[in-house]
Parts: sequence; structure tokens; C-alpha cells
Amino acid sequence: MSRLTYVFSLFLIPLLLFCINSSAQADYKLWLQYKKIQDSKLASEYKSKINGIFALGNSATIQATSKELQSGLSSLLDTKIQTQQDINGENTLVFGSKSSLNEDIIKNLKNELDQVNNEGYLIKTFSLNNKNHILITGNTDIGVLYGVFNFLKLLQTNKSIENLNIVDSPKINVRMLNHWDNLNGTVERGYAGSSLWNWQKLPDFIDQRYIDYARANASIGINGTVLNNVNANALILTPQYLEKVEALANTFRPYGIKVYLTARFSAPIEIGGLKTADPYNAEVKNWWKEKAREIYKRIPDFGGFLVKANSEGQPGPQNYKRNHVDGANMLADALAPFGGIVMWRAFVYSEHDVNDRAKQAYSEFVPYDGQFRDNVIVQVKNGAIDFQPREPFHPMFGAMPKTPLMMEFQITQEYLGFSSHLVYLPKLYQEVLESDTYSKGKGSTVAKIIDGSLDNHKLTGIAGVANIGSDINWTGHPFAQANWYGFGRLAWNPHLDSETIADEWLRMTFSNDETFVNPIKEMMLKSREAVVNYMTPFGLHHIMDTGHHYGPGPWVSNLSRPEWNPTYYHKADKNGIGFDRSKTGSNATAQYNQEVAQVFNDVKTCPEKDLLWFHHLSWDYKLKNGQTLWNGMALKYQEGVDEVATMQTTWKKMGNYVDKTRFKEVQMLLNIQYKEAKWWRDACLLYFQQFSGKELPKGVEKPTQTLEYFESLKFPFAPGNN
Amino acid sequence: MSRLTYVFSLFLIPLLLFCINSSAQADYKLWLQYKKIQDSKLASEYKSKINGIFALGNSATIQATSKELQSGLSSLLDTKIQTQQDINGENTLVFGSKSSLNEDIIKNLKNELDQVNNEGYLIKTFSLNNKNHILITGNTDIGVLYGVFNFLKLLQTNKSIENLNIVDSPKINVRMLNHWDNLNGTVERGYAGSSLWNWQKLPDFIDQRYIDYARANASIGINGTVLNNVNANALILTPQYLEKVEALANTFRPYGIKVYLTARFSAPIEIGGLKTADPYNAEVKNWWKEKAREIYKRIPDFGGFLVKANSEGQPGPQNYKRNHVDGANMLADALAPFGGIVMWRAFVYSEHDVNDRAKQAYSEFVPYDGQFRDNVIVQVKNGAIDFQPREPFHPMFGAMPKTPLMMEFQITQEYLGFSSHLVYLPKLYQEVLESDTYSKGKGSTVAKIIDGSLDNHKLTGIAGVANIGSDINWTGHPFAQANWYGFGRLAWNPHLDSETIADEWLRMTFSNDETFVNPIKEMMLKSREAVVNYMTPFGLHHIMDTGHHYGPGPWVSNLSRPEWNPTYYHKADKNGIGFDRSKTGSNATAQYNQEVAQVFNDVKTCPEKDLLWFHHLSWDYKLKNGQTLWNGMALKYQEGVDEVATMQTTWKKMGNYVDKTRFKEVQMLLNIQYKEAKWWRDACLLYFQQFSGKELPKGVEKPTQTLEYFESLKFPFAPGNN
Repeated sequence: MSRLTYVFSLFLIPLLLFCINSSAQADYKLWLQYKKIQDSKLASEYKSKINGIFALGNSATIQATSKELQSGLSSLLDTKIQTQQDINGENTLVFGSKSSLNEDIIKNLKNELDQVNNEGYLIKTFSLNNKNHILITGNTDIGVLYGVFNFLKLLQTNKSIENLNIVDSPKINVRMLNHWDNLNGTVERGYAGSSLWNWQKLPDFIDQRYIDYARANASIGINGTVLNNVNANALILTPQYLEKVEALANTFRPYGIKVYLTARFSAPIEIGGLKTADPYNAEVKNWWKEKAREIYKRIPDFGGFLVKANSEGQPGPQNYKRNHVDGANMLADALAPFGGIVMWRAFVYSEHDVNDRAKQAYSEFVPYDGQFRDNVIVQVKNGAIDFQPREPFHPMFGAMPKTPLMMEFQITQEYLGFSSHLVYLPKLYQEVLESDTYSKGKGSTVAKIIDGSLDNHKLTGIAGVANIGSDINWTGHPFAQANWYGFGRLAWNPHLDSETIADEWLRMTFSNDETFVNPIKEMMLKSREAVVNYMTPFGLHHIMDTGHHYGPGPWVSNLSRPEWNPTYYHKADKNGIGFDRSKTGSNATAQYNQEVAQVFNDVKTCPEKDLLWFHHLSWDYKLKNGQTLWNGMALKYQEGVDEVATMQTTWKKMGNYVDKTRFKEVQMLLNIQYKEAKWWRDACLLYFQQFSGKELPKGVEKPTQTLEYFESLKFPFAPGNN
Repeated sequence: MSRLTYVFSLFLIPLLLFCINSSAQADYKLWLQYKKIQDSKLASEYKSKINGIFALGNSATIQATSKELQSGLSSLLDTKIQTQQDINGENTLVFGSKSSLNEDIIKNLKNELDQVNNEGYLIKTFSLNNKNHILITGNTDIGVLYGVFNFLKLLQTNKSIENLNIVDSPKINVRMLNHWDNLNGTVERGYAGSSLWNWQKLPDFIDQRYIDYARANASIGINGTVLNNVNANALILTPQYLEKVEALANTFRPYGIKVYLTARFSAPIEIGGLKTADPYNAEVKNWWKEKAREIYKRIPDFGGFLVKANSEGQPGPQNYKRNHVDGANMLADALAPFGGIVMWRAFVYSEHDVNDRAKQAYSEFVPYDGQFRDNVIVQVKNGAIDFQPREPFHPMFGAMPKTPLMMEFQITQEYLGFSSHLVYLPKLYQEVLESDTYSKGKGSTVAKIIDGSLDNHKLTGIAGVANIGSDINWTGHPFAQANWYGFGRLAWNPHLDSETIADEWLRMTFSNDETFVNPIKEMMLKSREAVVNYMTPFGLHHIMDTGHHYGPGPWVSNLSRPEWNPTYYHKADKNGIGFDRSKTGSNATAQYNQEVAQVFNDVKTCPEKDLLWFHHLSWDYKLKNGQTLWNGMALKYQEGVDEVATMQTTWKKMGNYVDKTRFKEVQMLLNIQYKEAKWWRDACLLYFQQFSGKELPKGVEKPTQTLEYFESLKFPFAPGNN
């Protein structure tokens, strides 16, 4: 044993043990683990190219960037990376925005700097006096920050940093998280503990988590956050809370993250002392103008308001016989002088409207196309119902070319097994974004509507309902971190594919070892179809249990609003199952462009994955593979369960690549998922069997409990159900 | 630079940086930091005495002990400590219970093993074939675990491990935490996030925190935990929840921690389908017997029930015209066959009782002395009102010699600034425990009643209402960890002094450096008097704002129950201030032993710290230092504020001894405390000034806001107020 090795074994290994030993550590660090590069050859290569770092500028953003780079590189390269005062040596990593570069360099980079927008960046190997350096730059400091995070990712994912020439810009302007966080600390549809925001201790206590939250978001390009629930409380707009919001905005600002709030439409009454919130009323208009002024005085870069109006009991302009345009434009006028925007949600449906719920948002909003102010963007959920395991894309996409539409995805798994089920959602997001609306002919994908390219919109946006809470691992499930990550990546570029995203996330979060990455990536990619299969195969939807949406409840039919009942959606009877939305039924298909409508309308061309979304079919309907619908359905449920069993087997082999705590966590969670997948299968098949009257086909396990048992299960304290 | 040093600077320092860098880390690890011993001479000494460890036995407890020892020593000594298969070498650390020792050793240790009880331990240097070793043993594996934690503490606090001869046993049998955790995840009077117990994911997901919670508790000797709120929900007793409780019990068992539950008295009706919960009813008795059997089938070492009955709206035996004895004994009979106990709370007061609230618990319970079953213990709060910054000891202590009384302290700071105020509570606990009841003459301290020595009770207990939640640092304030720690230490030995406890906690949690330990210890020791001074000097009490108890509310007088109003307690008027509990008033003093009553009765002998608890005195009353009561009070408020300013100054100097994250956290929290101390001072003095009609004396800062302003403050979402 050489002396050096001896020293290693004596001192280094225990220390590493000490680090790894901490249970809180790895879970907390998300994809910013910055683990020491294991491949020593690669580590030497990296080190040879990074002698030190040299910051241009000293804004808060550059300081944060510098800190990130220093701690990230020091960990990755296992050596202290020095800050330099010049670039007289070689292999210096130089970073700073355009304004800090000398004119020669700017001239050289002009084309590329023009190519990227205000948040874009360049990462380039460049030569100075015959010595190589790396430059990370952009038109703004925030661009530089994004570039640095992406440079760190190169190392984290073991990519080459030779002859670097990366030019990248976000494709969507507003890339944000929506937190459905209540002021009492609970999170609606939150399954990862309570709210991150400690309103009690704000504004004076800045939790380190706020900073780490900003770092994590900045690392994937998220640039906005709505702090509070769309089911809003007007108190957030009082000085007592605005002072706290201001403290968060100050904390997030260096990381390029703007703060937004939800605006309760009745706030002028509730906290303003007015008698009305009618958007035509002068006092009301003025109240909002003054409120905007008050907010911007505290937070000059405040982002704007997100509004859920006249939806599920929230007040709105319709309370005063005004419409969505009236409401949104009034708020937009208040924010316009300060550069703020209004995100007006299209998630509306009425208990007084007997039409198919799937049609209502379109019917209500499409007529308003072109009437909204320039600083209004309409926020549309990915599907026409509500964040189901699978929905066809929302028909509003492509139907309002004169209005910027913002995508609303759900990252938190309200209908997808809470934080106990491993479901890799970027696969779902990608499916939606790739969907072709045909609104301007073939290739008019949802992604192109969202990124503004199809209809030439300047205001573009995408929102993800956050899955983040106070749990040490942020998201309740270690793999749910991938959904936050993946949402951010697709927000940056909605044309990315989910496999690439899974690959980089796995490498950053766990290991670069191919024997880990490949099978686990496959597991992630298959996980979304698994949940569809064991919950809602063939286009079934909204058959979750009441209120909390935890577990199966296809039998629920006693809720006051018909469209809240699962029976409304599956319409199972002796004759068959499914919601006829074709021409012979609710004709929801007509809301799509003709090319799309045609495909959905005809049971022969309708993709089988969406079959029961659009058609009511007999139990004996013949699927493409020759199976009857009943047998096919039963086998899909079984397939979903089997896939989870495969996930368990795959994960079990990965003990060597993952720290003990996270390994065990995922193992326990997969056990829950397997148990619950079987619960879904058994409960749904027993329930539907009452109507089909048929035996379970070969290959489907027999339920071990009765339907009565499943119907008797109650979960009075299921989380997220505020 | 020697080669060795070079290797160090290159590899070791960055790694250390990497470790320290993590924000979640230090906060999470509590007093089990196991930081590398900084004093290299001492580290060498330790290493020379610990070549390896050798476990005797392989129970779950011994395995947990072994793991703790290995990871703790490896970190402390910065070297991998090996497990050995024999003790043929020298300097082996041997640990195991009596049953695993050979007879020669047992013979040698007989006296000492007889001295310690089932949870006690010995730590001894011993010789075998002329070679020295260290032995940690006890009568049980749990004793060994406690010994090992105490051995690790010796190293953590840099004590000598030469010629070890430590013999120690806990003085109280039942040492437990009471969690006021609700099934929906909120914590009543919780200021550290939400409940630790993730009922949704239990029983299949065992959070690493459950294990670390058990480790932390075991390290200070806590051996019981009541999982749920005394304001109870009967659902915890249904199979759905008992399955989850069982999983927690299994997790805690190796660490010597028994699980207890609160029993809602009306459970037979709510979940049992009975028409009554009358303790005389045969069906009710049988229901509880069967319930006990069901619980013990799952959890053979289940601890028992904690009951809040006929108090603040909770149901109880009085609903059926039975009394506390009837209720407690019925439950005790159900648990007795399985060895369980009933902890029956004495925290009762009635809105229909016009007597001084401070007298009611005594009046109601003392007549029952001697009537409770052997497995009933009556749980009494430390004071007669409710966990105030200062209360005289509860008159029930010393008044029920035939009944074991259990102490209930509050660790969570309901009335003491939530988790934003640094208040070192062991100082308060010690004051209570040292109080002399004179029940069997001088020296009949509360501690001696609690530990059973005075009245010769075998069943003894102490409970602390936990300050633990889902916050990464467990307790919301880094220094609130010391209150959990200190409670555990005093539960082990109620005769310990709080200074020793602060000293060891600081060394384990932060640093052994005297330049840190000494001033910060002083800061902690003074912090309790500071909070008394800026909130409730001279025996004032319960003048906190309504419901949430956050901030001052001496003006509140509109609550339906008179004894919920602050005005009930301070009785300030033109003539003076204070609650006359002397012979001329409510005569609550008569509930104390004559020697004590006499002291409290006479304004001349009554300690000034308790003055207004027992006496209503004029604003001009002359204090011992010659000041008028008004001036003295105002100066005390100022003194409290000044003390917090001193705390700020002291802490500011400690940046070199504390990791950055915790340093900043404490700094921000002290800023909040200072702000709120001034708020208390100003609001209370402005309010009382209305009655005194006097100017503020010199040295007291002028309020910067009006009384109306303070009265207008509302905190609708203050935490913990379920």
C-alpha cells in the first residue's frame, strides 16, 4: 500500500462515510448533488480545463452564480476551485454578461448574442494570447446564471467540455410554478408535507430552503412562482402579508425568479371595504389600481396576478353579470403601467350547464378570442377535464389564435397516486405538447401554440402546479423530483423529449453508471403508461374516489353536482362503457379542428388509448388485437400491476448505485404502489364486472377482497383535500 | 509543506467543505453531530483507548447500538472503527447486557449491577490478561444502549475516558413526550411545521426521521411517546390507524421507546357503535377491554392511554355523572392484564365554577387521593394555570401522597414566543422541580414527589409536550432543540441542574471551544428570565392574545368563558394590579402546605417574582429595591428587552464557531425576538398605563406605536391554533 493510498483509506473513506451517512442530505439536494466525478480520467480532464474561475461583474446574480460555481466545481472535482482576479493564466472559466465583456469579444460573439434572448446564454471555449479559456455569457446576468447551471450539468452528466460551443435560449417567456398553498400552511393537493412558506416567521426569517428553492428552479430555468392557492384568500394582498411576499421576492430576485400572487376577485369587498367587486365599478377599478401601485412599490418586478374566477365557487365577474374579458381586462389595466400580467384561468364548468363538462371551457372562452388586453394570457389545463392520468389535449389549444394561451400542467399527483406512486410525468407532458392541433395545418403542435411560434405571440407561458412541500426531499417521493425537474426543462424548451430529460436527471441525482441509468430510465419512461393502465385504461377518466381523489371510486354517484361523480364519466351499464363525445353523443369532438375531430369521431380511427373518452362501446367491442373490450380492459389493469412488479424488481438491483436512505425509500414506496395498483385493478374490475357480467380473462389475478370491502374504505384525513 | 499535509489540503479540506456546505445537515442532526474531535492530542488519546468495538448479543437493540457506536466513533475520531470478533487484543470497547457477560465479570460487577435498575448502565475500564478494555453494560440491552449514548457523549464533550467508572440509572420510570398531533397532520401548539407522523404513507413507508427521532430520544433516555393529541380523535383506535401505530411501535422498539395513545372517552360511541360511554356500563367496560386486547395483539409492549377528560370540551365520565376515578379506573382495568397504564390528566377547570381557576384542579382531584388503581398516574401541569413563562408550582404536588403524580411540562413554547424566541426551558423546569412543597417537611421538593422517593411510589412519570415537527431542524429554532434535550435529561434525573445540561448540549450541538460555550451558556441561562420580564414580570400571567397566544393581549375581555380572558388574570384597575389569591382573596394559597402558604400569603415574604400571582397591589406599592410597583414593572419590561439586545450582541461574535446556516438562522430569530420583546413591552405598558395613570420611569424607552395600534393587530393564521 503506498503512503498516499494509506492516507486515503485512513482519512478519506471515513469522511465520505460521514457525508453519505446523513439521511437528510441526498434527499434534500435534489439534482444539485454535485457528487465527486467517479471517472478519474474524466475528472483529470475537467480539472485540466478549469484552473480557476473569474467573475465579471458583481451584481447579486453574479455573486450567486459565483458561489454556485465554486461550491459545485469544488464538490464535483473534489478540489478547491479558486476565484481569480485576472485571466493571465490559462484554462480560466470566465463568466459575466455582455455588458462586462470587452468590445473585441462582443464583436466576435455578436451573432450568437443576437441569436439568444434576454435569458439565453453561450458557453464557449475561446482563446486569448494562445491560451484556452471557457466563457459563459449572455445578454443579462440571469442568462449567465442559466449558462453556469448548464455548464455544471455538463460535468454532472459526464459530458465533454472540449471545444465548447453551446448557444441556448428559453423558448417560452413565463416559466412558472403555481403553488396551491394556503395561508394556514396547508397545500391543496399537496402530498409532500406543508407549505414551504413560513408566513409566521416571514419577513424576518429567511429560511435556507427559500434560497435552495430558488437555486433549484434557476438551475432548470423556472423564472416565476405564484406563491398562493388559486382558491385564493384576499389577505395575501394586505400590507401584513405583502411585507412577507416582498421578503420572498427579494430572496428569489438574484435567481431570476419573479413573484406572482393569486388575486381573489372579491378582494375589494373583503379587504377593501367596498360594497362590490363589479369590474365596471369605478371604485373597484381604482382599488385594484392602487393595490397594484402598493405592490409595485414594494416589489418593482412583481410578476402579476393569477386568477381563478367563477369556477368551483370562486367569485368572479359573472357575479355582476360581466364576463371573463371584463374581469381580466380590468386587472390587466391595473397592472399594465408596471409591466405586470394577468393569467386568467380557463378551468371553468358550471353545475347549471347540462352540457358535457369537457365542452364548457371551450364554449365559454373561444368566443372571447381577440378581446383580451395584451398583458392577459389565458391559462388552460392540458386536458378538458382535470389532470387525469391521460387526457386528449384541450380543444382550446388551436382554437384561440388571437389570444396567448398558457399551458397549465399539474406536477403534484392529485389523480396519480399522490406522492407514493412513481410516475414520470414528462412523458405525459411530452404527449400533450406533441399533439397536433392542425389549427394551421399539419404540424401545428400544442408546443408551437404554447411557445408563441404558431400564432406569433410575444407573451408566452407555461405553469406547473407544484409538487413541493416541507418534506426533507421536497416532493414526498425521490422520483417526484424528476417531475419538477422535467417540467422546468420542458418549460425551457417544450420540444425536448422526455427520455433525454430522464437521462440527465438520473445522472445528476443518482449516478452516471450505465448499469444504473439505463434500466432506471426505462422504468421511468414506462411508469406513466403503467399508472394509466392500473387506474384508467383506454381513455377512462375521473373514477377516483370523492374529494381527496385517493384510490378508486368508480361507484361514487351521490355527489350534488352530477359532473363530480365518477359515474358521470365512465357511464358503465349493461350495454357497455365510455363517454360518447362523438357526433352521436355530446359532440365534444367538434371542438377540435376538423382533421382531429374526424380521427376522434370514428371509433375505427380513434386511438385506443382515448377510446372510452370519446366513445361508449359494448363490452364485446373488438379491440385491434382481437380481444373484447372487457377482456382487453381487464388485461390492461393487470398489465399496469405487472409493470409495477417489474419496477420493484428493477429497483431491487440498484442498491450499489444509490445511497441507503433513498434506496430504501424508493423500495418502500414501490411496495405501496404495487399494493395500490392491485387495489385499483381489483376495485375497478369488480365494479365494472357488475355491468359486463363476464368472467375475468386468463392472466388476470382474482381479487382477494369483495367490492363491498373496497366501497367501504374511507380516508377522512387523506392529504391535500382542503 | 509535507506530502501528507499537501494531500490533506488538496483532498480533505474540500471534502469537509462539501459536508459543511449542506444547509440541511447540521440543523437536522441535533446534538448527535458527532463532529470530528478538534483537539488532536485528545483525539489521539481517544483513539489509543478504542481499537475496535465488540458487541455481545445481537438483538435489534444491540444492532442499533452497534451501528450508533460505529458511525459515531468513526465521525468523532475521523477513522473507521472496526467491529471485532474477539477481545484478544487490547483497548476493545465491549458492550452487551448482563446476560451476555461471563460469570467472572458478573460476579465482579454484581454490586454495581444491583445498584442500577433495568434501564441503568455501567461504563467501566477493565483489565483482561493485563490488557485494558472498556465495558459498557447493564441489566438489559436498553441499559447498554443508554450507556453507549453516554459514552459517545463523553467524547462529544471532550471528557476523559481514562479509568472509567460510571454507574447511572434513570430516576423516573416513564419519561415521555406528548405529541399534540392531529390526524390531519397539524400540531396543536406546534411551531415547527406539521406532524412528524405521515399517516397517509404509514404503515408501509418508514421515514428515516422516525428512526432518527428514536435515536435522539434514546440518547437522552426518553422511553415513551404519546403519538396523538390529548384533544383526541377516536379514529386512532380503529384498525386502519392501529396498523400504522404498530409500524411506529416496531420502529421505536429497538430504541426502548414505547408507544402510547390518547383515548377519547367517547370512543365506544364514536367508533364502537354503542349508545353510551358510561364507565359503569358493562358494554362500555367490555368494549375497552376488547380494544385493549386488540391493541396488545398488535403491540405487545403498548404503553397505555393518556386521557384528557371533562376538560375544555373533551368528553369524560362526568357526562354520565361519574367521576375521574370511575373513568380512570375503568380504563386501567382494561389495560391492567397487559401491563398498560392510564395517565389521567388533572388539567381541568369549569366555566360553571366561579372559583379561581387556579384552585379548581386541586379541589377536584385531591379528594380522590388513594382511590385510583395501581396502574393509574395523575398527570399534573407544572403550574395551576397553563404553562406560563413563570408559575408557582402546582399545589397538587405534595397534596396527594397516596397517588402517583406525573409531571407535565410544556416543551413547545405556546406562551413563550413560539419557535421564534430563544428561551432555555430547563431553567424553568429546574425551578419547578426544586420547589419545596414541605409536604413531609423541609426538602420535600417537587422532584422527590415526581421520582417517587418522597411517597414511595413505584409508578413514576414525567411528560413533556413536544416541540417537534416536520421542520428540517425538528424544533423551528436551533436553540429549541436544547429544550427537548434538557427535558430528556431532567426526566432521567430531575435533580440535575440546568447549567450542566446547557453545557453538554452546547458542546455536542455546536462546539467545545470555551470562547463559545461560556458566553452562550450564560445567554441561555438568562434567556428564561428575559422572557418573563418582557412578557409577564412579577407573577403576571395569561395576558397573551386570544386563542393563538401569540403576542400581548392584556386588553382581551370579551371571551365567553371569563377565565379565558387576560383581564381575569391581571385584574388591573385604578387601584392596582394582580390576582389576590391570599387569604383576603381567593385563598388559593391555602391549597399549599402551611409553610408554603404562609410565605405566599404575606406580601412581605412572597417572592417578588410571584407577587402579582398572589396579590393585588397598588401601583405605588414599594418593591424591595424601593421602586414603586409601576416603575419596577416598567423597568422589568425594559430589562427583558435589554437582555435580548445583549443576546444579539453575544451571538454576533460567534460566527467562527457555528456553521453559516445555523449562525444566520439564530441571528434572524434573535432579531424577531428583539422586535417582539419591544412589542410586548410597549403594548403591556401602554395598556396598564391607562390604569396607573403614571409616566414611564427613566430608562424605559417610549413606545413608538399607540395602544390602538397594538390592539388592532390580528393574526388569523398564527400556527398551532387548531
